[in-house]
Amino acid sequence: MINLELIKGIARPSPTKIVMLVIDGLGGLPNPETGKSEMETANIPNLDALTARGICGFADPVAPGITPGSAPGHLALFGYDPISYNIGRGVLEAIGIGLELQPGDVAARGNFCTVDEKGLVTDRRAGRISTEKCNELCELLNGISIRGADISVHPVREHRFVAVFHGDNLTDDVTESDPQQTGVTPEAITALSPVADKMANIANQFIAQAKTLLAGHHPANMVLLRGFSKQPCFPTMSEIYKLKPVAIAVYPMYRGLARLIGMEVVATGTTLEDEFTTLKQHYTNYDFFFLHIKWTDSAGEDGDFDRKVRILEQIDAALPGLVNLEPDVIVVTGDHSTPAVLGGHSWHPVPVLICSKYCRPDRVREFSESAFLSGGLGRLYATQIMPLAMANALKLTKFGA
Amino acid sequence: MINLELIKGIARPSPTKIVMLVIDGLGGLPNPETGKSEMETANIPNLDALTARGICGFADPVAPGITPGSAPGHLALFGYDPISYNIGRGVLEAIGIGLELQPGDVAARGNFCTVDEKGLVTDRRAGRISTEKCNELCELLNGISIRGADISVHPVREHRFVAVFHGDNLTDDVTESDPQQTGVTPEAITALSPVADKMANIANQFIAQAKTLLAGHHPANMVLLRGFSKQPCFPTMSEIYKLKPVAIAVYPMYRGLARLIGMEVVATGTTLEDEFTTLKQHYTNYDFFFLHIKWTDSAGEDGDFDRKVRILEQIDAALPGLVNLEPDVIVVTGDHSTPAVLGGHSWHPVPVLICSKYCRPDRVREFSESAFLSGGLGRLYATQIMPLAMANALKLTKFGA
Repeated sequence: MINLELIKGIARPSPTKIVMLVIDGLGGLPNPETGKSEMETANIPNLDALTARGICGFADPVAPGITPGSAPGHLALFGYDPISYNIGRGVLEAIGIGLELQPGDVAARGNFCTVDEKGLVTDRRAGRISTEKCNELCELLNGISIRGADISVHPVREHRFVAVFHGDNLTDDVTESDPQQTGVTPEAITALSPVADKMANIANQFIAQAKTLLAGHHPANMVLLRGFSKQPCFPTMSEIYKLKPVAIAVYPMYRGLARLIGMEVVATGTTLEDEFTTLKQHYTNYDFFFLHIKWTDSAGEDGDFDRKVRILEQIDAALPGLVNLEPDVIVVTGDHSTPAVLGGHSWHPVPVLICSKYCRPDRVREFSESAFLSGGLGRLYATQIMPLAMANALKLTKFGA
Repeated sequence: MINLELIKGIARPSPTKIVMLVIDGLGGLPNPETGKSEMETANIPNLDALTARGICGFADPVAPGITPGSAPGHLALFGYDPISYNIGRGVLEAIGIGLELQPGDVAARGNFCTVDEKGLVTDRRAGRISTEKCNELCELLNGISIRGADISVHPVREHRFVAVFHGDNLTDDVTESDPQQTGVTPEAITALSPVADKMANIANQFIAQAKTLLAGHHPANMVLLRGFSKQPCFPTMSEIYKLKPVAIAVYPMYRGLARLIGMEVVATGTTLEDEFTTLKQHYTNYDFFFLHIKWTDSAGEDGDFDRKVRILEQIDAALPGLVNLEPDVIVVTGDHSTPAVLGGHSWHPVPVLICSKYCRPDRVREFSESAFLSGGLGRLYATQIMPLAMANALKLTKFGA
């Protein structure tokens, strides 16, 4: 696996531009009724035409057989090995709801849960209370005051929330209170290093006060905390690639992730057409564009084959707005596959298309999984896409003399 | 390369079943007379039909260009990186003849050899004495008694034997006595760490007594020992994959290897038809089945192209017995290639076929090397087959959120 230090050493700034169109959950599986996948079913002439000009293949986000979450899937696309560049669960949850953590803040993923009169956990998700109830209970927990830290509690969805601990000398090397099973009491949080005593102490006080405040709110009469983590300090894309990168994404999760690796994040609307318009508006100001389309993944997650097909067609209709800008390099890929027949993320390698004046095109003319099997890229790791995009943009100098 | 700790973290038990059919020495090379390989020559309609339902490609057991032995070839198939997970030569030889070593036992590979009157080695293999002679001489050596260890000597074949040292505080970090050349004396065995003094001492006493006992048995008038090793303590397949695995194999080597990584090993007959029957008998009791067919490799080793073809056809005839069990995932592959035209193991990547409801089938319809070149798996490392099999059986949860 190529390492980022090597790339950093040979990357150079240049006026060329790269657009990476990430169609979330792009790859699929054949519909048992037709034998055709979502990509094979969709009528997508513009993507087909782009394929005819480009070189294509498949990328494994993590490794063959491994189904990635959205964070590792995207980190890989930007060249960060998702096994080494790990983002803690608490931070990820915070990013997902658009929180901007300060340096030193510790975030934890929280569950409202149910405990019985002996304090044993009977339901780790408190019967999946409504999001409205979650909002209300988070408001209640925001009343908690503990010396040494400001604590804010943010609702996510149903039984899920994020707790952010802000203060001096807080660390994230503490255990979790979530026992990951029922019939036992929540665990006390303990320090995993001497400097973590303060954090463990504060977290335990928070849990104790939460228990008191929630006493009358059965089934949500207790909390479980896990994934204590600080925002990681990753090298930025500008440091590695000498790029001026920008992210265009509707959902907070992807905006937050992009910010974490130093992309600027610009305002956009709520539709995919809005995102293509935003690309055009900002086209002169940046040289790397991460354009994220979420709804293919959502349709796949919902097991809605036809909707995934329709969204692919919608992307295809918007594509000329991108192609007509004539970027030096266009990459079209996904962060993972989300086949509608599986109703969730999957391990299947993700179709990837690279289009540039110098891409050495193959003979594939159809934007589909089966056609891409004959593609010139073969099967890659997703972390290899950025070096290829950079090379095609003539932004990498020679390695060695 | 994915590591087993990562897989361990995302593996979960489930009722789905995986059958891995290992056709030893599967891949071949074209017969110069016909231009067709063994697989291409064989009439194997059932394997072709399975191919049409599956996704195929090639796997490198160790790395491109590296010809693996049976042990690394198989370890890779079960997901153990064969470079990190190394089995000592002595232990491997013991496993090969079906010995079950106790914890703490040290095994060494032995050769009967010839030394001249000055004690210089003149033939490292004692003229390849007969196996009968080997049996007789091992019986003689079993009379050796040394304080601090029970030593048992087991014939292998021709000049080869295994010596097992059983006792307290025996270690395997000692040098070898085999000088790997003629015209020199056997080397004294020396300790490579202070705790190894006892082992070195006992081994040297054993060699000295063997020399005395063998004095009148020219050409087998001396022994050479190498590959001192203890049975390694590998994580089991149950620990890693949460599987209940079973091995069906006729030959001791493969049964021993399977036991080493925690598979149960069931009794079976002596033919490949017996093995398929055993699979059926035990089908409800396990969720991972390693079904090992040896004779393709033996035919390849013997340079017998036609026999290898016939055995492939025999496997094909037995295949419905496996397919009709309707396992959730079927993997068909080999531990390495053994082309009859080479008469031995080779470095050629091994055909691999994965068949499941969710495998994203390719367009290949023929079980052959040339057809598999268009397969959807591309070229993998053999260690990536298990994660793919696990994923296809829906036994792996998401990596990262």
